Amino acid sequence: VAETTFAKGLEGVIAAESGICQIDGANGRLYYRGYPIEDLAQHSTFDETTYLLLYEELPSREELEDFRQRMREGRELRLPVQDMIRHFPEAGSPMELLQSVIAYLSSTVQHRIRHSATCNCRRTLHQIAQMPTVLATYQRFKEGGGYLESRSDLSEGANFLYLLRGEEPSAEEGRILDTCLVLHAEHGFNASTFTARVVASTFSTCYCSVSAAIGALAGFLHGGANERVMDAMDEIGSKDNVDPWLDRKLAAHEKVMGMGHRVYKAKDPRAVIMEQLLLELSEHRGDRRLYELLKRVEESFGAHMAKEGKPIYPNVDFFSGAVYTMLGIPRYLFTPLFAAARSPGWLAHILEQRKDNRLYRPKALFVGPQPRAYVPLEERAGMASRALV
Amino acid sequence: VAETTFAKGLEGVIAAESGICQIDGANGRLYYRGYPIEDLAQHSTFDETTYLLLYEELPSREELEDFRQRMREGRELRLPVQDMIRHFPEAGSPMELLQSVIAYLSSTVQHRIRHSATCNCRRTLHQIAQMPTVLATYQRFKEGGGYLESRSDLSEGANFLYLLRGEEPSAEEGRILDTCLVLHAEHGFNASTFTARVVASTFSTCYCSVSAAIGALAGFLHGGANERVMDAMDEIGSKDNVDPWLDRKLAAHEKVMGMGHRVYKAKDPRAVIMEQLLLELSEHRGDRRLYELLKRVEESFGAHMAKEGKPIYPNVDFFSGAVYTMLGIPRYLFTPLFAAARSPGWLAHILEQRKDNRLYRPKALFVGPQPRAYVPLEERAGMASRALV
Repeated sequence: VAETTFAKGLEGVIAAESGICQIDGANGRLYYRGYPIEDLAQHSTFDETTYLLLYEELPSREELEDFRQRMREGRELRLPVQDMIRHFPEAGSPMELLQSVIAYLSSTVQHRIRHSATCNCRRTLHQIAQMPTVLATYQRFKEGGGYLESRSDLSEGANFLYLLRGEEPSAEEGRILDTCLVLHAEHGFNASTFTARVVASTFSTCYCSVSAAIGALAGFLHGGANERVMDAMDEIGSKDNVDPWLDRKLAAHEKVMGMGHRVYKAKDPRAVIMEQLLLELSEHRGDRRLYELLKRVEESFGAHMAKEGKPIYPNVDFFSGAVYTMLGIPRYLFTPLFAAARSPGWLAHILEQRKDNRLYRPKALFVGPQPRAYVPLEERAGMASRALV
Repeated sequence: VAETTFAKGLEGVIAAESGICQIDGANGRLYYRGYPIEDLAQHSTFDETTYLLLYEELPSREELEDFRQRMREGRELRLPVQDMIRHFPEAGSPMELLQSVIAYLSSTVQHRIRHSATCNCRRTLHQIAQMPTVLATYQRFKEGGGYLESRSDLSEGANFLYLLRGEEPSAEEGRILDTCLVLHAEHGFNASTFTARVVASTFSTCYCSVSAAIGALAGFLHGGANERVMDAMDEIGSKDNVDPWLDRKLAAHEKVMGMGHRVYKAKDPRAVIMEQLLLELSEHRGDRRLYELLKRVEESFGAHMAKEGKPIYPNVDFFSGAVYTMLGIPRYLFTPLFAAARSPGWLAHILEQRKDNRLYRPKALFVGPQPRAYVPLEERAGMASRALV
């Protein structure tokens, strides 16, 4: 590669080889380790999918049971972590808390990875197990509740709802949330996964790498689309208001959240599954209002775009916020929950990076001032007129 | 750029334009915003250099005084942060603690940067001011001491030593450490600075971006060289042992830590200054042993490499560990102190990234399994023979 290659945002630059996730954007297909997302959503669980991402193959029954047990044993929070949650400022974002806690937890892992291609997944699992507990505990404390121990007989999805609510969710609800976690577990390179790999390339710990990735996902340009979809649904309010709302949006050239995807030119396959989950949940709860509102927006917007010859489809964020809302998950936990769900993918990338590592060290093109002489303090002009940011 | 560009570790790829730091490796020159590092080391202070990096110009007297006051006002730690330090596991690394605390502190900043090119440096300063206090407090608690409030009449360098020791350092010692911080404040792109920019490119907060950068600096391949130089000095022990030790090292084709630099083909200009600081400190303390030991290693190694026609010079890490050691700073604080010193550089890059932002989104080259059918649990072979990492 020529020294002068300059690609802003590294667009079009291949930063690494990867065998974790295949996205066929033209045909709207997604595979984890070769397995279609539809099959995983229908037959797998979040813990099995985590195993698949980390170990590259589906587990045997015995392997799955062992793995599941280890994951469930890692759910409880130590007291200092509970205190971090308890004293976390009201105005703070749970993403900041999660990023902080995961770095803090790095200290509890004796197994240090130094200069090594191998990583102890057994230890690393711990942080995947801790994240939902951190989030649910944050929510419990915020609502004046106390710390609640996890239920080792419940799946990751069901246990999260149990911790949030203090009572066991229905089997249907537990299954639906667990499937949502499967759908978000991995999605190739993006700013957060790339961050995880850059940090891992220094041979920093898995925890410190995942913590950094959470920091990236917290950014407005990366995470949070499903929150904004729900904000839009609040704004629309009822089906009758869809067309006037959409007309205003389109006239103002504003983006309709949850529509279109950088990679998928066909419908996002996760959106197809998420829509089905929302329908099932709506039937289960006997309340189709949110589902019907979303479908109405999809139809109206789709018809408009088709007329313009620019077909555009909903992405996974379009339906996920409604599923979470109907499950009683507060909006500010959507992105942190995304982080928890994505952690197996981040870890798979961290392990892969370590196996054939090269420290990420791109170059900068210097565009600053040429060498100049230092000016002593007493000779400097007052710069009150300079706009200080 | 063609879609197929593949540069492992992004080697040779220009990831961004930058006007903060110019490194002239061939001639061994380094400039912050155009000012030679030698001038800054001689005439500037860490707070003035921080101002220069963040605001692009040297401050007037009034601006510097205002800035200095704001920075010093931001030093004290809130109680929950003190508790995080107090309960931090013995086996943990202070880098993990620092990464965690900085993300946690993000929650205390009301000013949220969303979708915005401007950043409130006033708020952002706070984290630069907090870092040395976190590290000194970590050390105090570790040694059984209590929390000590900062001295607002002391420079960043002097105050750090005051917090560590519980008593005011000499003016000479304070000046020397403050100059060390100036020398480490910025050094262009590398894995940690690049991490800060990638996270910032999502419009995550300054704190979350710096926290991620700390995670990268914690890695064995990035930070920690000066610790390893001091480990080597312990191993050598005395001047008489330099040649036998070096012969063994060279025979075993082992790296001599603190020698050579990826970018500098001439002598690292910071090493020249750091050597002078070490000499001054040695004279001040009336103890030249460490200085002479290092010089002997430099001479012997230099003579050997010259004979091989591969001139190689010490880098800044070769001398910095000795300076820190003579100032009474424990070895495990070297890399965290580097992080504290580098934080103005990281922040300058974060602000620069925001001004002309493009989300970092490189591509991966897929090398994994082709689509395959899901195998139900009961039909999976036992895979006990598979090596589980």
